[in-house]
Amino acid sequence: MTSKIAAEAIGTAFLLIAVVGSGIMGERLAGGNIAVALLANSVATGAALYVLISIFGPVSGAHFNPAVTLGFVLKGDLGAGAAPSYMMAQVLGGVLGVLATHLMFDEALFQMSKTPRAGPGQWWAEIIASFGLMLTILGGLYARPQAVPALVACYITGAYWFTASTSFANPAVTIARSLTDTFSGILPAHAPMFIVMQFIGAALAVFVARRLFVAGDD
Amino acid sequence: MTSKIAAEAIGTAFLLIAVVGSGIMGERLAGGNIAVALLANSVATGAALYVLISIFGPVSGAHFNPAVTLGFVLKGDLGAGAAPSYMMAQVLGGVLGVLATHLMFDEALFQMSKTPRAGPGQWWAEIIASFGLMLTILGGLYARPQAVPALVACYITGAYWFTASTSFANPAVTIARSLTDTFSGILPAHAPMFIVMQFIGAALAVFVARRLFVAGDD
Amino acid sequence: MTSKIAAEAIGTAFLLIAVVGSGIMGERLAGGNIAVALLANSVATGAALYVLISIFGPVSGAHFNPAVTLGFVLKGDLGAGAAPSYMMAQVLGGVLGVLATHLMFDEALFQMSKTPRAGPGQWWAEIIASFGLMLTILGGLYARPQAVPALVACYITGAYWFTASTSFANPAVTIARSLTDTFSGILPAHAPMFIVMQFIGAALAVFVARRLFVAGDD
Amino acid sequence: MTSKIAAEAIGTAFLLIAVVGSGIMGERLAGGNIAVALLANSVATGAALYVLISIFGPVSGAHFNPAVTLGFVLKGDLGAGAAPSYMMAQVLGGVLGVLATHLMFDEALFQMSKTPRAGPGQWWAEIIASFGLMLTILGGLYARPQAVPALVACYITGAYWFTASTSFANPAVTIARSLTDTFSGILPAHAPMFIVMQFIGAALAVFVARRLFVAGDD
Repeated sequence: MTSKIAAEAIGTAFLLIAVVGSGIMGERLAGGNIAVALLANSVATGAALYVLISIFGPVSGAHFNPAVTLGFVLKGDLGAGAAPSYMMAQVLGGVLGVLATHLMFDEALFQMSKTPRAGPGQWWAEIIASFGLMLTILGGLYARPQAVPALVACYITGAYWFTASTSFANPAVTIARSLTDTFSGILPAHAPMFIVMQFIGAALAVFVARRLFVAGDD
Repeated sequence: MTSKIAAEAIGTAFLLIAVVGSGIMGERLAGGNIAVALLANSVATGAALYVLISIFGPVSGAHFNPAVTLGFVLKGDLGAGAAPSYMMAQVLGGVLGVLATHLMFDEALFQMSKTPRAGPGQWWAEIIASFGLMLTILGGLYARPQAVPALVACYITGAYWFTASTSFANPAVTIARSLTDTFSGILPAHAPMFIVMQFIGAALAVFVARRLFVAGDD
Repeated sequence: MTSKIAAEAIGTAFLLIAVVGSGIMGERLAGGNIAVALLANSVATGAALYVLISIFGPVSGAHFNPAVTLGFVLKGDLGAGAAPSYMMAQVLGGVLGVLATHLMFDEALFQMSKTPRAGPGQWWAEIIASFGLMLTILGGLYARPQAVPALVACYITGAYWFTASTSFANPAVTIARSLTDTFSGILPAHAPMFIVMQFIGAALAVFVARRLFVAGDD
Repeated sequence: MTSKIAAEAIGTAFLLIAVVGSGIMGERLAGGNIAVALLANSVATGAALYVLISIFGPVSGAHFNPAVTLGFVLKGDLGAGAAPSYMMAQVLGGVLGVLATHLMFDEALFQMSKTPRAGPGQWWAEIIASFGLMLTILGGLYARPQAVPALVACYITGAYWFTASTSFANPAVTIARSLTDTFSGILPAHAPMFIVMQFIGAALAVFVARRLFVAGDD
């Protein structure tokens, strides 16, 4: 169990380094061309996810995401008893990842984001983003388990662009990103609503996947 | 059969979310630098296609495209009786995907595109785009079936750039894109000619593939 | 044999559509930002190569390149008698690809490039580019044959950037690109020297690979 | 042994061609838009790494990096006696790669970089960068050995963006890059501290991996 918890914490920490770090680097270098910054941000995050899920998958399942952990509990693949320690490791790892990133980029260690992310369009976007992420994972496990790291990486790289919220889709990531006032931040007051939408989207996907991804069904 | 139809509808809906959503996001952020917007658009669409074909392939074949469905009927892999429900699911899913995208991006739900896309160059481009897409699918099934999701994804990412029409290559996508007056739209009056060219291109590819991709031929 | 020749011609035609078409599209949209145009150009060419080598590999070997065909003759994998028809199909296919591209983009059908590409730096770059390409192919066949399409695609996407000539590395492509006065063109008078360097680079790689890629050597 | 040393030297030479060459090309074409230059730089380097590790992996292990060689000695996979010749081949190959690049781009053959890269943020970034690289390699060897070339390529493409130093993570690369006063250079006086951090990061990863990547642990 210890190595599972460590894998979830280290993996989520590196995921946040990827998201927040590439956001800072992209914004600093892009000189106002936000599209180029988001391109760097989305490619770097996807590349990191491919690596992290590949190497930590056999250790802990490589969730790095409380909504995904909830999905696996609902699906019956993870005992409900393991969920709290998974989720705590993810949140703690995520926060440490943000601090490590601030240290690299000579930013103040503790920050609060001032970037508002709210409104019906944004909330709807987070439902779609999380629904799609969970459907990608469950469909991937059904159709081609070895491809799950590449599938999740490609899904997130794309979803940065095709969802209006740039696809947070992850409560631990949302909490951690509320603690950075850089490119990828989110106003802490707006985080809870994002998180609710993320759990709804992931739960919906478990429900739909149960009907769609059934061996031998015709 | 129900899950096949559902897979075609959900998959095509997500394909349109990817195409139209990343187009809106790209254009909004690129500040007039259309090349960067198209880069985001092409990468996001390719990434989404890789995911959607991987997870829905074992369920429905993951056509998401009436011209591809026609191709498989011509090839003899799909009964002609199944084609109409496939095509209807694709068109319906595509339209729903556009509406879901408009909702995310705070756009008016129902729109008509004003972007003209016509002329011999554009029509010829759609023949090439659809010929290449169908050849990619049939050649992939012949040479390396497991790679078809990656092959189609890479083909479309490239074809956004190397065909003059940005490679619609899909009648359901064309109809759905006529209903959005954003980056990826097409004037409804110009859609029918695109669709005719797409069916011609796909049919040509079935004809050529029958001669090229034959086991043991020398 | 007929299907081999057809595969070489169709594949090289599509390769030129990818190179020349994405160059035109990139330049038209980039508004003077040449780096973004080359990024589109390099990504689209790599994506197309991955597809073309995957689907035509089992048919003809998917050379699409007289220098590669020469390499396989030197290596002893292709009879010298087959080489002339392979090379003619590649050149013919390449030229037809350029014409098809001009038709799509409303360009004059027949053109001569005015872009100078000469000097010791450029020639040295073409030796490195072609040496690296042939080493990639031979090393890939030795180490991981199934990965050759992805290896060549990645090599070329990278080499667009890390060689000073943007890595033509292909005599058929060089001839065809002398016939377009667009982004990817080359002054016809400068083509022969490029072609000489390409054959030298590829031959050198056959020589080096013979020593490096030997099973059981230690 | 000779072919191992040759593979390390040729591979590291091509790695430096990729890093330095794409940096020069990117900066020349980007016209001040540094983010686009770094995007080209990171994509070209990742693409080259995927190729080089794939083809040279079965020959020498494809380290191209003294910190990685040290990691394998610590792990017990490489005899300490082989390490010095591996490291010398890497440094020599890297320097030759820089010279070959200068020749292509009509740059003075011998240069000294004037780009300062120092300070606690940069050093901390190099520890994280090298820790992540070595963890990627060891985790990849544990979880999915065939994927190591793609894993390292994606890791570096991402780490260009998410580490404040753009992730040198390689003493041979650091020495070689001190000899070019172009986009990717580093002031020679600042190289030693980078190298110390790289060895620390890699050694830390060996230590952590020993606990995380253990078959059957639960």
